[in-house]
Amino acid sequence: MTDESPKRKIWVGFDLGGTKMLAVVFDDKLKVLGKKRRKTRGSEGEQVALERLAETIVMALQEAQVSPDEISGIGAGVPGPLDLGKGVILEAPNLGWKSVGLQEFLSKRFKCPAVICNDVDAGVFGEYSSGAAQGARCVLGVFPGTGIGGGCVYEGRIFRGTRSSCMEVGFLQMATEGPAAGVGPPGTLEGLASRLAISAEAAKAVFRGQAPHLKEMAGTDISKIRSSMLAKSIDMGDKVIEQIVRRAAEQVGRGIGSLINILAPDVVILGGGLVEAMPRLYLDGVREGIKRNVLPSLADCAKLKVSELGDLAAAVGAAAWVKQEADARAAKS
Amino acid sequence: MTDESPKRKIWVGFDLGGTKMLAVVFDDKLKVLGKKRRKTRGSEGEQVALERLAETIVMALQEAQVSPDEISGIGAGVPGPLDLGKGVILEAPNLGWKSVGLQEFLSKRFKCPAVICNDVDAGVFGEYSSGAAQGARCVLGVFPGTGIGGGCVYEGRIFRGTRSSCMEVGFLQMATEGPAAGVGPPGTLEGLASRLAISAEAAKAVFRGQAPHLKEMAGTDISKIRSSMLAKSIDMGDKVIEQIVRRAAEQVGRGIGSLINILAPDVVILGGGLVEAMPRLYLDGVREGIKRNVLPSLADCAKLKVSELGDLAAAVGAAAWVKQEADARAAKS
Amino acid sequence: MTDESPKRKIWVGFDLGGTKMLAVVFDDKLKVLGKKRRKTRGSEGEQVALERLAETIVMALQEAQVSPDEISGIGAGVPGPLDLGKGVILEAPNLGWKSVGLQEFLSKRFKCPAVICNDVDAGVFGEYSSGAAQGARCVLGVFPGTGIGGGCVYEGRIFRGTRSSCMEVGFLQMATEGPAAGVGPPGTLEGLASRLAISAEAAKAVFRGQAPHLKEMAGTDISKIRSSMLAKSIDMGDKVIEQIVRRAAEQVGRGIGSLINILAPDVVILGGGLVEAMPRLYLDGVREGIKRNVLPSLADCAKLKVSELGDLAAAVGAAAWVKQEADARAAKS
Amino acid sequence: MTDESPKRKIWVGFDLGGTKMLAVVFDDKLKVLGKKRRKTRGSEGEQVALERLAETIVMALQEAQVSPDEISGIGAGVPGPLDLGKGVILEAPNLGWKSVGLQEFLSKRFKCPAVICNDVDAGVFGEYSSGAAQGARCVLGVFPGTGIGGGCVYEGRIFRGTRSSCMEVGFLQMATEGPAAGVGPPGTLEGLASRLAISAEAAKAVFRGQAPHLKEMAGTDISKIRSSMLAKSIDMGDKVIEQIVRRAAEQVGRGIGSLINILAPDVVILGGGLVEAMPRLYLDGVREGIKRNVLPSLADCAKLKVSELGDLAAAVGAAAWVKQEADARAAKS
Repeated sequence: MTDESPKRKIWVGFDLGGTKMLAVVFDDKLKVLGKKRRKTRGSEGEQVALERLAETIVMALQEAQVSPDEISGIGAGVPGPLDLGKGVILEAPNLGWKSVGLQEFLSKRFKCPAVICNDVDAGVFGEYSSGAAQGARCVLGVFPGTGIGGGCVYEGRIFRGTRSSCMEVGFLQMATEGPAAGVGPPGTLEGLASRLAISAEAAKAVFRGQAPHLKEMAGTDISKIRSSMLAKSIDMGDKVIEQIVRRAAEQVGRGIGSLINILAPDVVILGGGLVEAMPRLYLDGVREGIKRNVLPSLADCAKLKVSELGDLAAAVGAAAWVKQEADARAAKS
Repeated sequence: MTDESPKRKIWVGFDLGGTKMLAVVFDDKLKVLGKKRRKTRGSEGEQVALERLAETIVMALQEAQVSPDEISGIGAGVPGPLDLGKGVILEAPNLGWKSVGLQEFLSKRFKCPAVICNDVDAGVFGEYSSGAAQGARCVLGVFPGTGIGGGCVYEGRIFRGTRSSCMEVGFLQMATEGPAAGVGPPGTLEGLASRLAISAEAAKAVFRGQAPHLKEMAGTDISKIRSSMLAKSIDMGDKVIEQIVRRAAEQVGRGIGSLINILAPDVVILGGGLVEAMPRLYLDGVREGIKRNVLPSLADCAKLKVSELGDLAAAVGAAAWVKQEADARAAKS
Repeated sequence: MTDESPKRKIWVGFDLGGTKMLAVVFDDKLKVLGKKRRKTRGSEGEQVALERLAETIVMALQEAQVSPDEISGIGAGVPGPLDLGKGVILEAPNLGWKSVGLQEFLSKRFKCPAVICNDVDAGVFGEYSSGAAQGARCVLGVFPGTGIGGGCVYEGRIFRGTRSSCMEVGFLQMATEGPAAGVGPPGTLEGLASRLAISAEAAKAVFRGQAPHLKEMAGTDISKIRSSMLAKSIDMGDKVIEQIVRRAAEQVGRGIGSLINILAPDVVILGGGLVEAMPRLYLDGVREGIKRNVLPSLADCAKLKVSELGDLAAAVGAAAWVKQEADARAAKS
Repeated sequence: MTDESPKRKIWVGFDLGGTKMLAVVFDDKLKVLGKKRRKTRGSEGEQVALERLAETIVMALQEAQVSPDEISGIGAGVPGPLDLGKGVILEAPNLGWKSVGLQEFLSKRFKCPAVICNDVDAGVFGEYSSGAAQGARCVLGVFPGTGIGGGCVYEGRIFRGTRSSCMEVGFLQMATEGPAAGVGPPGTLEGLASRLAISAEAAKAVFRGQAPHLKEMAGTDISKIRSSMLAKSIDMGDKVIEQIVRRAAEQVGRGIGSLINILAPDVVILGGGLVEAMPRLYLDGVREGIKRNVLPSLADCAKLKVSELGDLAAAVGAAAWVKQEADARAAKS
């Protein structure tokens, strides 16, 4: 007698970060069955890193008690400019990678459909499929961190360019002067308001003797001034730091206001370390900034929400994305 | 014996402007069969204007030698904030209208499906369906005029908000200072670079004695300084006017650069009176501005083109849109 | 018996404007004895204009019942770049003049010492010697009009360059974007906040239908929108015009705030048509702008005052200046 | 027989810095006879510091082989808001001082006339009396450092406020957005272009991996990124750092351009650590910035020069100032 129970469907979501990687195994309802987080070690060369990546998936499968041949698809959220058509990471400066065919590697190694997408897009899709933006027709996600990432899910699909991802919210032009981001002209939102911009302003305040609590915690080294410390120093009374964070949040709000005028999203999701560390202060600033820029006729269309999935968002979204693509393909055939 | 020839399909596109209205009759391949243009006379009251609008369609049908009962659908491109779900013009300041159920009116009067959409969206859809952007996966249209309108066609459909149209390109925030547009804060693209902004700068130059040719043609009255005069005065040697137009075009380019970073369109269409009057100067300025703001990885994704359909664009697009919607509905059933 | 009464001292102040000229005859206490105002007619050639200028002085002398040979000195406040060393008007664009040796002309014609100075400097010196800034150690005068003029009296003397006048307050750089003034880059105070800039913004508001009262009075022609009309339309309820004037005044305040940080004046004098037409609104705006920019340690040094001498200021100041120069020379010898 | 040789005149110049103090002894021709430099130790209390200050003068006198009773006057250049009338340091944040009557202290202790002045003013007066600006009618000095100091010598005297010093060049408003300086609104010259602003931008570039040489020398700690390291990293090829310094220098140039329009100086002196470390790059940037903002009619009035006296400037200037004041008093009596 043959086994007639249908093969269960397993999806893997992978989140490839500059310092850490995360593999998560899901059932067909996107319930987490197991996961594994490890250091990325991108600098040891692509081949080493790819092997390490595959190992991490295998470890997550083991934790989930799932056999590799049960996988229906793997979705991977990855940083850097991508060729989405070919499934290739064109460049990942944090990892020192160039032209890595990750999609094909995963597909061949695990003998299943694989798909790569931008990690921020994956996170927004995660919030759309199982987080703070479920059911929204149009979601804009904004994630202020070292840079300022953005993504959009429009009518159930990731909004993207023909070959590449887009929604580079950090590269909206907000002013004609001001600090530069790493790329492009002065006056971009990222130059004005990223975590790096905030840390630099905060370090100057420390240097001038205006932020005694932050001085004790972090000094004037911008790489040591993290979101959690900014939050703590504000709690302890560093008023100047509070102003710096609020001004940056207002700038992000100005940018979101511009984008509401463009995209008219139903939901705007805010996430990332700064938002998590200081949700009230940050959202107040963002709301103020939106108010400055949004058109009256569009002012009420978008709800502002904080992301719900935290650091699982990209893995959840990547898995949900590969599942949706596979389901759509199945429905057509 | 019954007539077995299938009923031919006729589509009507309507463009409702502040001063003029245009009805165009198309066959199923969107070939023009007839058209009629008349003054809008919006100020005589909605009921009068709606009758006049219906009459105009009837006149166009007569010219096309088509009977009203042959119409398969009417699409209307209209200005102002709309409720797309209900097909209602919420407000059309140029016409003095509030809450006009145009979609239902057209549908009942002509006993056929009707659809309204934003006039700029209609124009971009027209360029997508039969103009300069045919076949593009993502088209951004930008139309600098008295204001600066924008629209986007994404994967074959008009990009829109849940209830309303969006792509308010004129209300991107580009600076924190500078002249205001009619609505919202200083520093919007419309405040910096609309035809009205250009005319005001030009009038100042005339007042200062820096633009002798424009002085003779138009003086210092901003309502008399039209695109064609700006073009002529530049041709005759008013260098300051050339700089003013170029600077405005660069600002529009900066805005488009920001939007390429957001939307990664394949094609950017520029249209409107300023562009038509000075295509070379204007496109040079726009290109310069884009270069200042676009991310290197997205710099090459978008082709910059001038609109091809001119003042037929909105009517063509509205007809193409109602046809596509009807065909899609037919395919599903 | 010889006449032993000392010759009485008579001083003449002259104000040469683009449209009008004014000669005023003073006694040694700078009391007005007579005056004459006439149209300038600069465009009829320098020779004609110089004759007309001399005639005007003669007419004022007649009104004052003073003989030309009683004049102790003539001071003339004149527009445009000057060579103060040689007493030459290098260029007066409003008059169409180039290289006019006005000082020598006056001196020869009336056989007395003559001196020319910048007309705005003259006005500030007038306020210092007999107006709102008497006794101040350092006075800054700011006169927002078609342009924005400035002057400074420092420790009893006009602050000036080696050969030329200076205090070009209108050409402070306040921003990197925004409308240009006639000369120089965008973002100067004059570009942002002159009467011309205000008129252009107001004309746009009229065009957009936001300023019905101004529309009726002046329409959209910027050369017809004068300070008095702006004031009247605000009184009648054109809120947008009020905002436009207030924003411009705030920009002037930002500039003055910068200059207080530089010059630490005891008194800041505001004058000109805009200030006279709307003193309360304008000063409120200026105060707000100063507050934004002035250093705490210098915030209280300067009193803000409105000019007291009105359109006599430049003539009074020019006469006071030639008298002071002559007295100083006499004291040395 | 009595000694008939006239008592020789000795002047002392003192430069009180946040970390170091310097006493210099001069003969009547302002030739250096001796000097002494020591740590300030301001934090040990005012009384201790004043004693230390007096000791330092005594040590310099010993080196110069001069007896204290030979001193004709002491001039001291000091930081912070001063009451020049009373000779009181109102506040010296770097030293933790408030209301210190330094002038009276020096005068009583050394039984001679004493005068205090702002240290930047002293430096500019030094350059005027024996450095790069000798004989100039109007000198503007600009010293970009942690902040951006400025001073002006006008017709042979320090330009000052009634009670306080002024020429706060760092607090010119250049933009409406951008990083804040420690005091006041965003967009000041100091916020945009001080050494602190440069270091923060440079630290960000290091963090992003764009400045490998600076990374090795200084890392991401803004208090470790000094002018000399910026210069070295540029020499070694850190292009981004070169751009950052050049942009800051251009902003300083924009500010100087504005001030040329206001003051029409004959000479502009640039000094301080940044300028000394990178004179060519820095002056190129400044020239570029001036060109952007200066009025054509004033473009040629001012020569741009580098300071010649280096870290002796303030002591030289303070001595020259007290000597000039004493000589003037003597001439009057």
